[in-house]
Amino acid sequence: MTQHFLIIGGSDAGISAALRARELSSAVEITMLLADDYPNFSICGIPFFLSGEVPDWRNLAHRTRADIEAKDIRVLTNTQAEKIDPDRRSVMVRSREGNLSELPYDKLLIGTGARSNRPPIPGLDLPGVFTLRWMDEARAISAYLTEHNPTRVLLVGGGYINMELCDAFERAGLHVTLVEHHRTVLKTVDASFGEAIGDRLASRNISVRCGRRVVFMERSNGNRVEATLDDGSKLSADLVIVAAGARPETQLAVDAGAGLGVGDAIRVNERMETSLPDVFAAGDCAETWHALVGRPAYLPLGTTAHKQGRVAGENALGGFAEYQGSLGTQVVRVFDLVVSRTGLKDSDAKVYGFDPLTTESKTWDHKVYYPGAKELRIRLTGDRRTGALLGAQLLGETATETAKRIDTVAALLHARRTVADLIDQDLSYTPPLGSPWDPLQQAAMDWLRAQHSSNLLR
Amino acid sequence: MTQHFLIIGGSDAGISAALRARELSSAVEITMLLADDYPNFSICGIPFFLSGEVPDWRNLAHRTRADIEAKDIRVLTNTQAEKIDPDRRSVMVRSREGNLSELPYDKLLIGTGARSNRPPIPGLDLPGVFTLRWMDEARAISAYLTEHNPTRVLLVGGGYINMELCDAFERAGLHVTLVEHHRTVLKTVDASFGEAIGDRLASRNISVRCGRRVVFMERSNGNRVEATLDDGSKLSADLVIVAAGARPETQLAVDAGAGLGVGDAIRVNERMETSLPDVFAAGDCAETWHALVGRPAYLPLGTTAHKQGRVAGENALGGFAEYQGSLGTQVVRVFDLVVSRTGLKDSDAKVYGFDPLTTESKTWDHKVYYPGAKELRIRLTGDRRTGALLGAQLLGETATETAKRIDTVAALLHARRTVADLIDQDLSYTPPLGSPWDPLQQAAMDWLRAQHSSNLLR
Repeated sequence: MTQHFLIIGGSDAGISAALRARELSSAVEITMLLADDYPNFSICGIPFFLSGEVPDWRNLAHRTRADIEAKDIRVLTNTQAEKIDPDRRSVMVRSREGNLSELPYDKLLIGTGARSNRPPIPGLDLPGVFTLRWMDEARAISAYLTEHNPTRVLLVGGGYINMELCDAFERAGLHVTLVEHHRTVLKTVDASFGEAIGDRLASRNISVRCGRRVVFMERSNGNRVEATLDDGSKLSADLVIVAAGARPETQLAVDAGAGLGVGDAIRVNERMETSLPDVFAAGDCAETWHALVGRPAYLPLGTTAHKQGRVAGENALGGFAEYQGSLGTQVVRVFDLVVSRTGLKDSDAKVYGFDPLTTESKTWDHKVYYPGAKELRIRLTGDRRTGALLGAQLLGETATETAKRIDTVAALLHARRTVADLIDQDLSYTPPLGSPWDPLQQAAMDWLRAQHSSNLLR
Repeated sequence: MTQHFLIIGGSDAGISAALRARELSSAVEITMLLADDYPNFSICGIPFFLSGEVPDWRNLAHRTRADIEAKDIRVLTNTQAEKIDPDRRSVMVRSREGNLSELPYDKLLIGTGARSNRPPIPGLDLPGVFTLRWMDEARAISAYLTEHNPTRVLLVGGGYINMELCDAFERAGLHVTLVEHHRTVLKTVDASFGEAIGDRLASRNISVRCGRRVVFMERSNGNRVEATLDDGSKLSADLVIVAAGARPETQLAVDAGAGLGVGDAIRVNERMETSLPDVFAAGDCAETWHALVGRPAYLPLGTTAHKQGRVAGENALGGFAEYQGSLGTQVVRVFDLVVSRTGLKDSDAKVYGFDPLTTESKTWDHKVYYPGAKELRIRLTGDRRTGALLGAQLLGETATETAKRIDTVAALLHARRTVADLIDQDLSYTPPLGSPWDPLQQAAMDWLRAQHSSNLLR
């Protein structure tokens, strides 16, 4: 019987595991170790704190420390896990004061998350240059904003975080330049959508430099940073944020002998067990399972971390939960544009041996006769031979239900349905909010026509 | 080979069948007979025409006559089908001028729709008293509004159409009273939601009289109608609209010998074939198939009509399409409140032999730390013994994506999943538009806890 469930990390995976374990047993002792002072903070919410939309950083906590402790979960903040000893079933920890102690466990969860990639750009350590993933980085940027009152910000990387930061800093009145080495921003969606998002950024006076890299950065003019791009051009900024993806935080696991998998993340099975006995891993430090292709993948997302944590928490107490896998479902709002995606796009699908066909449909979010209809663009990907649904990307203004329309596709992907099956779904309709054939179903019909033509041509 | 495909009716089922047939064959002759002058008009859009939000009734057409004819589909308006002769494979039709002629067919689709129920209330034929389903009724009401400039309207029945008419007439500045014999409005959702909607109506100065029936109506004071309720109270109005459901329009089919099924709708199989050779039926005149309970049902909805029509159109050309059934998915907006539903609620589920358990969860549509979060109420129904997902009802303000969140549940119902499976779905999240555990998933966890407690108590 599990008496001590020890959790390293207090973000999404850790908290979900702890809450699930407590739900299943009032007797188990649960201890959660946090390296920093921020239990269960919403990493995804940081851009909205920097924009001022969430004025108090404390509000970014999904749950306060008191909420967690009320569930009889012991929380040790500012406590660094130094070493896991799988034979002794214990973790050596160091307190803020430097005191070492040994915590025993029956079951252990590693939920150490990820840290920002630091691309090899000279000048990354200059004052005013930041990466952003954890609350301490967020608070450091916030303090820098207050202290130095920057007016020009350079964002390096065109992924989700920087999309939100474009929005955040523009709202805060700063002049924003974004540099992305890919030819369009947000490369998790196809180029036509990336271009549309880039255009929207440009329309809000954000200077977007795609297909360019920062080669080096240097100090100039007091507090300023000057970045030199690969075309020789120079950009000057008071604040630089480099968001170039994340890598799993695995040192503790590796030192203890745990195996690594895809993306050098901790290898886990569907029960979230590592290769070490009684040691689970979940969240951004661990592999995930791609539900559609049936292979391990590395897709560090909060939604996945919560689900994996819940599975680990259940199994740590002797349960038999299996993680059902992720599809890479994501949504981001960029000003008044919302882009969502799930599953595979053409280029991903080819890698996995599919024969992908992607069509783009332009529909209205609701019946066009009712005022306020807005364009909704849908890119649907399926397998040309089998008709299997592989993925979708949606682009629409806010209030087009673009975020939750993608969930319908995700549900069909989980059930391994075909594009044609989308047409059979009994989806909701009222003229101000939809169409008798939902936009997704209109897109499915377009896809089937394209499949038919494409097969005729072969 | 099908040379002549004849379609009686030009609303959703008819047009979907015609378009599907044309998509599959450029050779087939397609003729569509319309009893009125309104091809492919959106019945669901009528309330928004009466509200003035859609100023021109012509805009309510999903497609214009020209659009349809451009697809080489022959449209005969004001042409009444008088008699189907299944032996001769022909339909006798009468033109507006009264001329009879005989149209031959290889395949025939009956898409005659439904007509308003006329409850046995004395006074239903008085001037100023209307039912509402078809465009001619809509235009008659519109003309009455213009001519008589009514200030007080009485709506009899608390279903979808009258919910929208409450909104419509209040926007138009009329004083509205609604009488519903059930104890709450919108009895397709549970009473707690019906009450919330009733409260919202009342907050917009609509006088809601639930648990009451209109016993008779009589003329009073010139153009006024006085309605007497079953408690003896009297209501005076310049305009009365009675919306008491619909019954399938089956006379033609019955006269030709077609069998009837549930709700006295035309009996069809999954290929949308009637009991008559080469005669299909689809839409509000026909049965539907309940995808979850695996039995015929009568659920007249535009979404269903489109899907059934598409299946019929494909099979009329020798295809092998099977209608996959409906779940009764519906959504309606009442002022700034949106209520959606799919599948079975407790009382329905009991009828079909399930052991239903329904829980209600209150969540936020998105992370509460991000401004503008609104309450979302979710009622989830599952089978206590098997954990099977049976249905859901959602209630939220506009912009909470309540319309399209229900679609995720519908997709899971089509795939016959459990409540627990909802938790495993990889759904989208960003703080301004969601939560790492989507509200549906939070509701599923609440349901599982309730199931656990409920089974312990047995």
